[in-house]
Order: sequence, then structure tokens, then C-alpha cells
Amino acid sequence: MKHSDRISDKAGLPPGSAVFVGREAPLPTQISVIDFGKGYFSEKVSPSLCEAWEVPRPEGATRWINVRGMEDVQGFAKAFEKMGLSSLYLEDILNTQHRPKAELAPPCLFVVMKRLLTDNSGYRLRAPQVSVIMGPDWLVSFQEQHEDVFGDIVRRLGNPQSLVRGKSPSYMLYRMMDVVTDNYYLVTEKAGELIERLEDRVFEGKADGKTLRQIQRLRKLLVNLRRASSPLREAVSVILRDGHDLVGEETVRYFRDVYDHVIQINETVETLRDLLSGVMDLYLSGTSNRMNQTMQVLTVIATIFIPLTFLAGVYGMNFKYMPELGWRYGYLGVWVIMLSVAAVMLLYFKRKGWL
Amino acid sequence: MKHSDRISDKAGLPPGSAVFVGREAPLPTQISVIDFGKGYFSEKVSPSLCEAWEVPRPEGATRWINVRGMEDVQGFAKAFEKMGLSSLYLEDILNTQHRPKAELAPPCLFVVMKRLLTDNSGYRLRAPQVSVIMGPDWLVSFQEQHEDVFGDIVRRLGNPQSLVRGKSPSYMLYRMMDVVTDNYYLVTEKAGELIERLEDRVFEGKADGKTLRQIQRLRKLLVNLRRASSPLREAVSVILRDGHDLVGEETVRYFRDVYDHVIQINETVETLRDLLSGVMDLYLSGTSNRMNQTMQVLTVIATIFIPLTFLAGVYGMNFKYMPELGWRYGYLGVWVIMLSVAAVMLLYFKRKGWL
Amino acid sequence: MKHSDRISDKAGLPPGSAVFVGREAPLPTQISVIDFGKGYFSEKVSPSLCEAWEVPRPEGATRWINVRGMEDVQGFAKAFEKMGLSSLYLEDILNTQHRPKAELAPPCLFVVMKRLLTDNSGYRLRAPQVSVIMGPDWLVSFQEQHEDVFGDIVRRLGNPQSLVRGKSPSYMLYRMMDVVTDNYYLVTEKAGELIERLEDRVFEGKADGKTLRQIQRLRKLLVNLRRASSPLREAVSVILRDGHDLVGEETVRYFRDVYDHVIQINETVETLRDLLSGVMDLYLSGTSNRMNQTMQVLTVIATIFIPLTFLAGVYGMNFKYMPELGWRYGYLGVWVIMLSVAAVMLLYFKRKGWL
Amino acid sequence: MKHSDRISDKAGLPPGSAVFVGREAPLPTQISVIDFGKGYFSEKVSPSLCEAWEVPRPEGATRWINVRGMEDVQGFAKAFEKMGLSSLYLEDILNTQHRPKAELAPPCLFVVMKRLLTDNSGYRLRAPQVSVIMGPDWLVSFQEQHEDVFGDIVRRLGNPQSLVRGKSPSYMLYRMMDVVTDNYYLVTEKAGELIERLEDRVFEGKADGKTLRQIQRLRKLLVNLRRASSPLREAVSVILRDGHDLVGEETVRYFRDVYDHVIQINETVETLRDLLSGVMDLYLSGTSNRMNQTMQVLTVIATIFIPLTFLAGVYGMNFKYMPELGWRYGYLGVWVIMLSVAAVMLLYFKRKGWL
Amino acid sequence: MKHSDRISDKAGLPPGSAVFVGREAPLPTQISVIDFGKGYFSEKVSPSLCEAWEVPRPEGATRWINVRGMEDVQGFAKAFEKMGLSSLYLEDILNTQHRPKAELAPPCLFVVMKRLLTDNSGYRLRAPQVSVIMGPDWLVSFQEQHEDVFGDIVRRLGNPQSLVRGKSPSYMLYRMMDVVTDNYYLVTEKAGELIERLEDRVFEGKADGKTLRQIQRLRKLLVNLRRASSPLREAVSVILRDGHDLVGEETVRYFRDVYDHVIQINETVETLRDLLSGVMDLYLSGTSNRMNQTMQVLTVIATIFIPLTFLAGVYGMNFKYMPELGWRYGYLGVWVIMLSVAAVMLLYFKRKGWL
Repeated sequence: MKHSDRISDKAGLPPGSAVFVGREAPLPTQISVIDFGKGYFSEKVSPSLCEAWEVPRPEGATRWINVRGMEDVQGFAKAFEKMGLSSLYLEDILNTQHRPKAELAPPCLFVVMKRLLTDNSGYRLRAPQVSVIMGPDWLVSFQEQHEDVFGDIVRRLGNPQSLVRGKSPSYMLYRMMDVVTDNYYLVTEKAGELIERLEDRVFEGKADGKTLRQIQRLRKLLVNLRRASSPLREAVSVILRDGHDLVGEETVRYFRDVYDHVIQINETVETLRDLLSGVMDLYLSGTSNRMNQTMQVLTVIATIFIPLTFLAGVYGMNFKYMPELGWRYGYLGVWVIMLSVAAVMLLYFKRKGWL
Repeated sequence: MKHSDRISDKAGLPPGSAVFVGREAPLPTQISVIDFGKGYFSEKVSPSLCEAWEVPRPEGATRWINVRGMEDVQGFAKAFEKMGLSSLYLEDILNTQHRPKAELAPPCLFVVMKRLLTDNSGYRLRAPQVSVIMGPDWLVSFQEQHEDVFGDIVRRLGNPQSLVRGKSPSYMLYRMMDVVTDNYYLVTEKAGELIERLEDRVFEGKADGKTLRQIQRLRKLLVNLRRASSPLREAVSVILRDGHDLVGEETVRYFRDVYDHVIQINETVETLRDLLSGVMDLYLSGTSNRMNQTMQVLTVIATIFIPLTFLAGVYGMNFKYMPELGWRYGYLGVWVIMLSVAAVMLLYFKRKGWL
Repeated sequence: MKHSDRISDKAGLPPGSAVFVGREAPLPTQISVIDFGKGYFSEKVSPSLCEAWEVPRPEGATRWINVRGMEDVQGFAKAFEKMGLSSLYLEDILNTQHRPKAELAPPCLFVVMKRLLTDNSGYRLRAPQVSVIMGPDWLVSFQEQHEDVFGDIVRRLGNPQSLVRGKSPSYMLYRMMDVVTDNYYLVTEKAGELIERLEDRVFEGKADGKTLRQIQRLRKLLVNLRRASSPLREAVSVILRDGHDLVGEETVRYFRDVYDHVIQINETVETLRDLLSGVMDLYLSGTSNRMNQTMQVLTVIATIFIPLTFLAGVYGMNFKYMPELGWRYGYLGVWVIMLSVAAVMLLYFKRKGWL
Repeated sequence: MKHSDRISDKAGLPPGSAVFVGREAPLPTQISVIDFGKGYFSEKVSPSLCEAWEVPRPEGATRWINVRGMEDVQGFAKAFEKMGLSSLYLEDILNTQHRPKAELAPPCLFVVMKRLLTDNSGYRLRAPQVSVIMGPDWLVSFQEQHEDVFGDIVRRLGNPQSLVRGKSPSYMLYRMMDVVTDNYYLVTEKAGELIERLEDRVFEGKADGKTLRQIQRLRKLLVNLRRASSPLREAVSVILRDGHDLVGEETVRYFRDVYDHVIQINETVETLRDLLSGVMDLYLSGTSNRMNQTMQVLTVIATIFIPLTFLAGVYGMNFKYMPELGWRYGYLGVWVIMLSVAAVMLLYFKRKGWL
Repeated sequence: MKHSDRISDKAGLPPGSAVFVGREAPLPTQISVIDFGKGYFSEKVSPSLCEAWEVPRPEGATRWINVRGMEDVQGFAKAFEKMGLSSLYLEDILNTQHRPKAELAPPCLFVVMKRLLTDNSGYRLRAPQVSVIMGPDWLVSFQEQHEDVFGDIVRRLGNPQSLVRGKSPSYMLYRMMDVVTDNYYLVTEKAGELIERLEDRVFEGKADGKTLRQIQRLRKLLVNLRRASSPLREAVSVILRDGHDLVGEETVRYFRDVYDHVIQINETVETLRDLLSGVMDLYLSGTSNRMNQTMQVLTVIATIFIPLTFLAGVYGMNFKYMPELGWRYGYLGVWVIMLSVAAVMLLYFKRKGWL
């Protein structure tokens, strides 16, 4: 059992090898055991998944084991054996670069999701993994991060008036997926704002080298966003198509709601890609326009003065016999000619629309 | 219960939370109760959805409650409970950024649509939401805007000779969808005209920085248009595929008509995107052509005069022993050489096609 | 009942409204009644569709009413009522911007097609609509144009030896669709020639501003062509998939032939789009190449003469103490230096491949 | 019955019209009758298809009539009537611009294929048509070209030890399709080599106007190649899906092999398109790079000498009171200033990376 | 039987012809016979495939013949006849340019895969073929390369505690496919790093001609990677869809794991293509930006000095009557004028943002 930062380090290991692919957090794995039922709720902290599983629970209560942090790989492996769960699940849970998916293996339902987080600038996306295994009367959730994405749900369960206490595990699963997809909206909206701001800056002609960098970063963000959202659609549709027995008829409706959200998110991502490539086009044609303008200024100045300079050069020659040099109004005449040439040129450029 | 301008503010709320995602209008929600049947029609105003639902109605009449404005969120929630409708419907109705969809949940049929509006310039698109719930003998329609999109239908119902009075709720639903899709034609035609006008301007060489901005705005408009029209296709096809029981065999035919329109709208949107990207290409190659022309003018002028200026410079040198300077026809000779050089150059450029 | 030039003018009208969307021709609607059967053929002119329908016909004969021009909207509406046909058909027939489609509504089969016409230049495409309703022993065809696209078929029916007389209405429908799709080949071939000619001109370097305009016009033509051909594929496949009862087993084979043609046309359109975008690329890179060449000429001339001019300028200075000016071979030396500089430059450019 | 060079000349003709769309060869149609069976083989030349069909054959033998050249249109038509084959087949066989397809009409199987040929340069593609009709114990193959693509098969049949003699007609059909698809590999490999060679030339900076022409020609070649290969996939899959009865279970396996090849060819074509568009991008950015380089040379030379020339010009002025002109070290000083300016400039450009 | 380097050399050969399409290695084919079962394991070297097949094996043991190198074509052909395997398999095994596929032919399952290898630079991809035929209690694997990709598996089998010994042939097949797909991760990660490094270099403005070459090489690499990974998806899905009988219910789950990996690899390849095309865009716009900058420097320098040089030229003329030349402060005045012009120009460019 080892820890690894890259998925390729797993190459060559036997299948079901429990290797945590991710950055090791300095904190120990946090495990809380939540039992709830109609009018009942208790939350305990447990040192290991094995012990958490063996905490006695009141009859009829649903058990939810909420695991945060992936450090205790060996403990997980032992617990999975005891709980009779496939080691392939554990492999997928620990491989935090796994794509979102849902797997139906009655009586269990296994879901891998991505929680989306951006940094303050909004340009950098992290997608820590959240996996849930649902059994007939229990759920185990695994979060790559220690910071609990399900905090709100636990708080609501703690509220004695909450109707959630009486709900089925599949309803809980729905709530978890709902919380996770809600995160996506925050990210797409942030990205939308960034794109709009870039667009404004490009329109105002304030684009510079940094702009290009930001476009490329947003592009990467959208690519990663799509990687996190597009398989989710398939995952939810698997539950909708084949999960009726596991999920229950009345909860299916809620999953359809999640499905709607996931489709909307995917559409938004595509729209954002469209808009971003529009901004890129604007940027490029802005550059091209500016070059055009530069060229025109250069051309106007150069084409006006080059012939005049030539004329001046001619009368700067030192030939002995240059009759014009001796004329009384030669100098004046040259000025007249020069100004006429310049005027004609200016008129020409005016007509061309270059001035 | 709260109001929110952005969909992300809903993140973390429990499912079925009734939150109005949209701009709050200063007006109160307007609710009218319309009962109609063969030879029968009445229209009343009601202060709340609850009371509207409880207004007594003649036997055999179909009830249509037409709600305009989404302010009375709490009233809606109460009414939905009384009417036995899912709070998920209400969530979708209030989330005015929801994508168009149709949901069959016998005995109800729930449809979310977008009404399309452009401002005078035609460049800015708004898509206020219109949702309809259809029951066995009633309909409830919700409009984000206070201005009634179904005004024509009500007026027609008011006409005693109208055959519409005797029709089923599903026929009414069809009429509503027909009115909404008709709106799309207005928008696509307007966009088509704008694109054509842009194209003309680009062809006439009158394109400027504003043109680029307009292209980008049209691009955004088409992206939004597609977001509003493309899910509609799926929505109508859901009704056609699975809605026979709810909609009735003879009305299905009308929905097929709506389906035809929706497909045509989607095709038109794709065509407009094609044409717009053609205009963008034209614009860019126009810019490039203009730059090319500028370069040629500069090159012609510069390459003709640079050698001549050099020659003039040579005979402007002050060396003591420069035999040419003393020649009788030196000055004349230099002119002859200069003019010959210029003539050769001009011929060369002529042959190159630069003049 | 009214006439309208734009589809959006129909917005707000009740469904099945008979409005002719198209340019009103100055001619009255022409209606001919053709009865044919084994060894039998008669053709009469009728003033209105109603009367045409009521012309007595010999037993066993198939009736084909061929309507040219859409002016008599009111007459059509009356006739449809008498013939027991849905007003939705009439709406589609009169809406001449309808996309091609086939609708099976036993015992009728309703087909909307586009006849393609180009003007002499080949750049402008018109697509007048041709609709056919087929019943058990009759056909009614509606053409937007007065000029008969089915003239050849009528002439062939008139030939006493023709085997067509004994064929079923569905065979007649096939013949009509065959005639219409044959038209498409003419258009695609013409477009192919125009593209090839453009390509040649671009290769020969004769492209100018007009070329770009022609590319854009061809692009539009292909967009419109695709709009007319791509839904046709779906239409014919609907007949092939579900129309066995209406069309008859032995005629299905002929429709498969039409299907082959339609697919080939669609492929050709895609190929033409590919080729046209290739021509556009060539045009653009041609422009870019020409600019490159211009730049090189400018650069060569300028970089050779600019240093020489500088040298000449140096010895044109009027300093009192410039020893070189007094040297016996100063002037000669300057020339030698100048020519050497020029030679070195030329060699450098030669090596760079700019000459 | 007539000959025609363009498919549009067929427009307006009745269906099943036997018109040869292709270039008429000066040679007469060549027809050979091959009978084979276990240990049996005979090959005869026949003057017409009718007579070929009526040549007596030993019991149990399979007959293969190999037709080369499409000149004898009338003879074909007569023979088809006698053989009881649909005139639609003949129409497709003679229309040598038909797309590849397979049509199952028990007891016959009709296949249209394209044989691919390139000229020596590899840039020009011809795709003469090869059609085969397979019956229960006979095959008729039609080739547009006189040169026999099936020569190898005939030779192998002629070999007394060959196992092919005992095979079914469907196996023969497979062999024919195998020979034809093998041709595709030759073309794709040739095209691949040409693309690689172009790429090398572009990388070596040896690209010129001819290069662009070659890219466009390869582009056309690939477009045509795709037109010939992509429908073939569908054709073979039709045989695999529905042809079990006609083809026989054990031969199906061979067709699956052909299917694999066809898919590989299609993938190769897509890959080649990708690579070619990569070469085009390289070419364009090469052009752009070269322009950039040209610009830099010009800029460096011009910006260094323009200020110096100005200085020289200043001291070439003829003002009476120009104190510098009289200074002892004026001339030397000017040189020092000039060289310093030049040095500063050179340093600046060095830092910019332009040198 | 012959060896060939190009697939086209096979054209014209009869089907099932055993021709090795690949580079001939100087080493002889290496064949090892591995028998394993619960608690049992033996490995022998065999000189030919025939003899390997006939080595006696303990009852209940699974036999795995691991063939490395494709030189012994004749030996293979003989062995296939003896083993009763189709010669089409052999043809595919030897044709090392075959696309990945899986073929179910009970009781056998035939899989063709590609092992991916990059050279040290990471730019050049090789994809030697690995094929496996699985029977009821045996497997034969063929590797194009002599270096064993399955070395790890053999070593693990050799370990007496290994649970693998007791597994079914289908589990072994899964392990082989797992090893091969693990290789893909190494390649995609390497490519990802190279793209990132290119991107950094482009951002830092260090891109040069080499960069473009590297982009093109990565492009080719990704094209080849896709060719190797995209058909694999189909292959595994064939096993998942139809292979239940051959593979066994409990092993199917493992193949689903492989399927997940293959999909992830395909998605990664698409993402890399996206990113690479982003880098290309950056490179191009970087070039364009640099040109723009060059132009601005040139324009600024030229437009400032050209008018000044003209002025200097004017007062360098030798007219007799040029009053300014005699003025006391003429020279000073000219300098003042010149500096003012330069200052105005500089201000103008400052405002334009060119400085």
C-alpha cells in the first residue's frame, strides 16, 4: 500500500491495488458516524472506518459514515473486506483522478463525483473527488478534502424539526449530489464574469500580453470544467435508467431534477467555450486592426515626405551647371512644388479613408 | 423564502426551495382566473393563487389560472401544497434561468418555455420564462413578466363565436406553445436582417471597430437564442413520444406542428451562425486586404524614391575631385538617369499588378 | 385570409390559418385535372380546386389535380373542408418557407418538397415549394410557381404507349419526387463548376475583391442548398420506414432509389462546402503571400539604399575639417565602399532566398 | 438509350433509364464467362451479355460473368430483362458516379464499389465503378474500365490446386471486395507519403506557391477518397447485418474482415486530413514567420540608419552661422555621436532578441 | 509466406495470407509455455508454437503460451492449423498495423491491442501490437516486440502466495489488457508535460522555429495516440456487451474497470488535443504580436525622423537666394522647429499607446 501523486505510478500494480493518487494532506483522516431516523439523530467521531462500521446503531436508523481525507489507506482496505465491498471500489475512491461515474451493483450504488473549487482569482480550478457508496440502509461518503462539503446537510439533520431525518438513504444520496452540482453553478458563473470582463477589456482596446494569458487560462479552466461535468451527465442518467429498484420510485424524481441541473451546466460550459473563442477572435482582430492602423500612419508620413526629401536632395547637389539654383524665385518655387505634392497626397489619402 | 438574482445564490438550499431567481418587478403578482367551456367564458382577477384555485367553477368548464409576475413566492408555495403539486415544479418555475423542458407526471404535464424579446436595436435578447402546468381539466400558467404573452388567446376565448371554448386543456397548451414559438420567428428574422446589413456594410468597405462589436453581439444573441430553442425541441418531442395519454390523440397532431416549427427555428439559428461566421471571415479578410493595399502604396512610393534620393545624395557630396560635377550636362544626365530608374520601376510594378 | 411575405407575419394567428407566405404572382392559380388509368388519360382545366375535385371520373382511374400558383387561398380552404383534409396541411402548403417533410396520416401521405432553381449566373438560388397530398386513388400537387415542374410527367402520361398510365398513385408520387431531386443535381453541378472556376482564378493570382464576394455568395448558396436537401433525407426515410402500407411493397423499391439520390446530394453538398472553404483558405494565403512578397521587395530596396544614402549624407556635410573630402581618390573610394556594401547585402538576401 | 458525361443529363428521364454516365472508351465491351466448381474451371469470351448468360454450364458449377466496359448499354438492357433483374440495378451500374452501396433483394445481392487509381504523381484520383450482382449460383460483375481489376482472382481460379474453385458465390464476392479495398491501401499510403514529403519541404523552408497548390490538390484527393470509402462502411455493414441468409454463416466471417479493413481505411483518411491540415497550418505560420523576419531586418536597418542620416543631413545644411562646422573636431565628434547612437540601437535590438 | 514492411504489399494476396507486416527483428521468435493452477506453476521455453501446444500439462491447469517476435510465420501457420484456429486470426496477428479490436467466436475470444512506447524525448510514439487468443482453458499471446510486456504478470504468477494462480483465463486476459492500458497513462502524462512545457516557453516569448516543429510532432503523436486508443473503447465494449458467456459473470466487473480506464484515456487525448491547439493559437498570436511591436518601433522611429530629415534636406539646398540661410538665428531656429516636431510626434504616439 503506497501513496502516489500521479496515476501512472499505478501502472503495473495488480488490479484493486489500494493506492491513493493525490496530494497527501498533513491531517489524519477524519471519520464521523451519523445515525438518523424519524426523530432520531446522533453524530460520533470514530478513529477508523472499521470501528465506525461496528458502532452499534438503533433499529431502523440509517447510518451515514462521512470520511474526510484519504490518508488511512490500510484502514480503508481492512474495512472494505469486513463490509464485503469490492476492492475495485476502493481503487476508484483512492484514484482521485477518476472521472465521475455511477455504478449499480445491487444492493449497492457507487457514485464518484467531483467537487469544484476555484481560487480567489477564479482562474485556477481544483476538483477534489467525492465518492459515495449507498447500501440498503447505510451510506459511506469519501472526500479527498478534509473540509466537509456536506456540512450543511449534517447541520440540517441536526435540526430536530427537519423532515430529512425520516428520508431514505437514496434521498440522502440525492442531497449529496445536489450539493455537489450546486458548486458547479458557482464556478460557471465566476467563469462567465471573467469572460465578460476580458471581453470588455478587449473592446476598450486595453488588451495586452496578459490578456492572452488569461484567455488561455480560462480555456484550460473550461476544458477541466467539461471533464468534470460531462461524465456526470452519463452518471446521473445511469441512475435514472437502471436505478429504480435501488433508488425508489419517489426519489427518482429528485434525481431527474439533478439531471436537469447537470444538463444545464453542460450547456453553460459549451456556451462559455463559444463566448471565450469569440473573445479570442476579437483579441486577434484587434491586434490585426492595430497593426493596420500603425501601417497607415507609417505609410502616410513616409509617402508624403519621401518625394519631398528627394526634391530637396536634388537641389542639394553640387553640379556646376544647375540653372534653377540661380533663379530668383527658385527656392520659392521648390516650396510651392513641395506643398502642392503634399496637398495632392493628403487629398489622395483622404479619399482612401486613411486619415 | 427569498428572492435572488443569481442561480448560484440557491446553492446549499434544500431541494424544492422556493426561491425566485430573477429581477424583482415593482408590481405585485397579477392573477386571473379564466373558466371556459362550450359556449361559456368568465374571467376574474384574484389576489392570490390559493384563492384563485378555490373560486367555484361551473361543471364541465376548464379552468385556466394565468399568473403574471413571480413576486408572491410564499403564496405560490401555499397554493402548491393545497393543489397537491410537487414543490420541485415551483422550484423550476421560480428559477427563471431554467432551460425549456417538458415533464410528464400523470395526471399532470409540466412545461417550461422561454418567451423571446429583443430591444429596438435587435441586438439584445431577453428570454423571460413562461411555465405551464396542465391537469385533467385545468391549466396554470406562470409568466416571469407582467406583460401578458397570452393576451391574444384570452381575447379569442372572449369571442362568443370562438371554437376554442370547446377545446381540451391540451389544445390550450398547444396554443400557448404556438404563441411562444411564433415569437422566435420574429427574433430570427430580425437577426437575419441585422446580419445581412452587417454583410452589406462589410462588402462596401464601411466596416469599422463598431462592426466588430456588432458581430460579437450578434454572436452572443445567437448563442442565447440557441440555448432557448435547442432544448425546446427535446421538450416537444417528449410530449410527442410519451404524452399520448395526457394530450389526447387528436391534439398530438397539433403538437407535431409545433415540433416542425421548433426544428425549423433550430435550423434557422444554425444557418444564421454560419452566415455570421461568414461575415466575420469577410471582415477579417477585408482588413487584411486593406493592409495589403497600404503596404503596396508604401512599397511603390518608397522603392521608387529611395534610389533616386540616394543618387541626389551622391552628387550632394563635397569631395574636391568629383569630375561629374564639372561636366556640362552632368545635371541633365542625372535627371535622365533618375527618370529612367523611376520608369523601369513603374513598369516592374505594373507587371506585378501593384498599380 | 391574407397574403404575407414573411413568416413572422403569421405570428399570433390561430393554428391552421391559411396564409400564403410568398410573393404574390400576378397570374391566377392554374388548376388542371388529370385522370389516368390503364389505357386511359384525360386532362381538363378547372377554375377552382372545389370544382376540380367534383369533376366526374371513370371508375378505376387515378385522379391527379395539379395546382400551380397559391393565389386562391380561399378556394383552397373551401376545397380542403369538402375533401376532408386537415387545415394544418393547407397551412404548410401555403407557408412556402416550410422545410421539406413527409407526414403519414393514413389514408393520406403528405409531402413537402423544394424545387431548386438558379439564375443564369448560378449564384442565386430560389427554392419554390412543391407539396403533394396522396390519397388512396388520387393525388393533389401544389406548386408555388406557375411554371410546371411536372410538365414532363404529364407529357409522358399523354403518350398512349406509356406504361405509367397503369401505375399506382404512389408510383406517381415517386416520379414527382424523382423529378424534384433531379433538379438538385443541376444545382450542385453548377455550384461545383463555379467553385472550380473560382479556384482556378485564385491559383492564377487573379483574385480580387469580387472573388471574395463570390465566395460569400457561394457559401450562402450552399447553406440554402443544405437547408433544402438535408431535411429531404429524413422525409424520404420516413416514407421508407413507416410507409409500406400506403406506398405498397413494390413501389418502396423506387423510393429507396430516391433515398440513394438524396443521400448522394447531401454528400455532394458537404463536399462542396469543404472545397469552398479550401478556396477561401487559398484566397487568404494568396493575399498573405502577396503581402509577404511586397514586404520583401520593400525590404531589399530599402536596406540596400538606406546605408548608402547615409554615406552620401556624411560626405555632404559642410564641416571645415573633413580630410577625406580633400583626398585624391576619396570620391572613388566612397563609390567602392558603396558598391561593396550593396554587393554584400545582395549576397545576404540571395542566401536568405529573398531574391 | 444514350451516353452522357454528366449525371445532370439524366434529369427528367424516366426511372430505370439505362444511360451510361461516364467517358466512353474507344474499345468495345469485353465479356468473359467463367464457370468454376470443385476441380472444374472454364473461361470463354462472349460477344454480348445475353449470349454469355445462355452459354450452357455443367451442373453444380458457379457462373461468373465478368463485364469490362459499359459501352453495350442496349445489350445490357436486353440481358437484364431476360435474367429477370430490375432495371434499377442497371441504372445504378451505368451511373458510374453512384456512391458505393449494398442492396439486399433476395435472392440477389447487389453491390456498387469504387476501384481507386492514382496517376504517377499520386495527386489525381480516379474512381472507376465496379458493380457486382450475386445470385444463388452466379455472379455478374461490371467494371467501368476495360483493364481487369479481378485479373488475379481469375488467374488463381485457373490454378488447378486452388481451393477457391470449390467456394460459394458469396466467397467470390468477398474476394472481389477484398481486392477492391486492397486498392485503397495503396492510395492512402501514397497520399501519406505525399503529405510527409510536403511537410518536410515546409519544415525546410522550401515551400513556395507550388506547395499551396499541392496542399489543395491533396485536400481534394482526400475529399474524393472519403467519398469513395465512407459509404463503403455502410455497405459492408448492411451485408453483415442483414445478409446472413444470402451470404452464408461461414462467409460472414470474411466479410467481417473486409469490414475491419474498411473501418481502418476510413480512420486513415481522417488521420490524413488531420495531418494535411497540420501541414497547411505549418505553411501559413511559416509564411507569417518569414514576414516577421523580413520586417525585423527592415526595422533594424532602417531604425539604425534613419537617425544617422538625419544627423548627416543637419550638418549638410548651408546656414551661414553654424558654429559646429568650424570646430576643429566637429567632424570627428559627429562620427563619435553617430557610432554611439548605432551602438545603443544595436544593444536595444539585441536585448529585444531581434538580432 | 513472406515478410513485408507495408500493408499495401499485402494487396492482391489471398485472404488469410500469413504475411508479417512489420520490421523484422534480428532475434528468433521466443516462445514460453506457462501452466498454472491453484498452487501450481511451471514455465518452459519451447522452440516452436506447435511443440509448445503439445507439451503435456497437468489436469485442471490453465495454459498460457507467450509468443514474442513474429519471425516464425510458417511455424505459426502450422500451429494454427493444428489448434483449429482460423487463418484470419493469424492474418490479423501478423498485420501489425491492425487496429485494436475484440472478436467473439465461441469458444474463443480474440483481442488485438497496441502497446504504447515513447522514445526518451517523448515525441516519437511506437505502438507494437499485442494480440491474445483466449480459449476455454488456455491463452496464446503474441507480441510484436521481443521485450516482454507481460513480465510483471509472469513474475507474480511465479510467487507461490499469489492468488492469481487460481484464476480463470478470462481474468488473465483482463490482467493483460490492464497492463497494456496502464502503458497509455504513461504516454498521455508525458505528452501532457511536453505540452505544458511548450506552453510555458511560448508564454515566455522563447518560441522559435523549433517550437512549431514540436507542436507539429505532438500533433502527430496525439493523432497516433487516438488511433490506438479510440478503437480500444469499442473493443472492450464488445466484450462487455456480448462476452458474458466467455468471460464469466465475476470477471465482467474487471473488464468494466478496464472500460473506465479506456474512456478516461480517450477523454485525456481529446483534452490534450484541445490544449495543444490552444498552444498553437498562442504561438501564432505571439508571432503576430511580435510583428506588431516591430512595426510600431519602425513606425515611431521613421515617422519622427523622416520629417526632420526633410527639413535638413531643405536647408542643404544650394539655391542662391535662400534668405533663411543668412539669418543670424536660422540654424538655431531650425533646431527649435525640429525638436518641436519631434516632441509633438512623441506626444501623439504616447497618446496612441505606442510607447
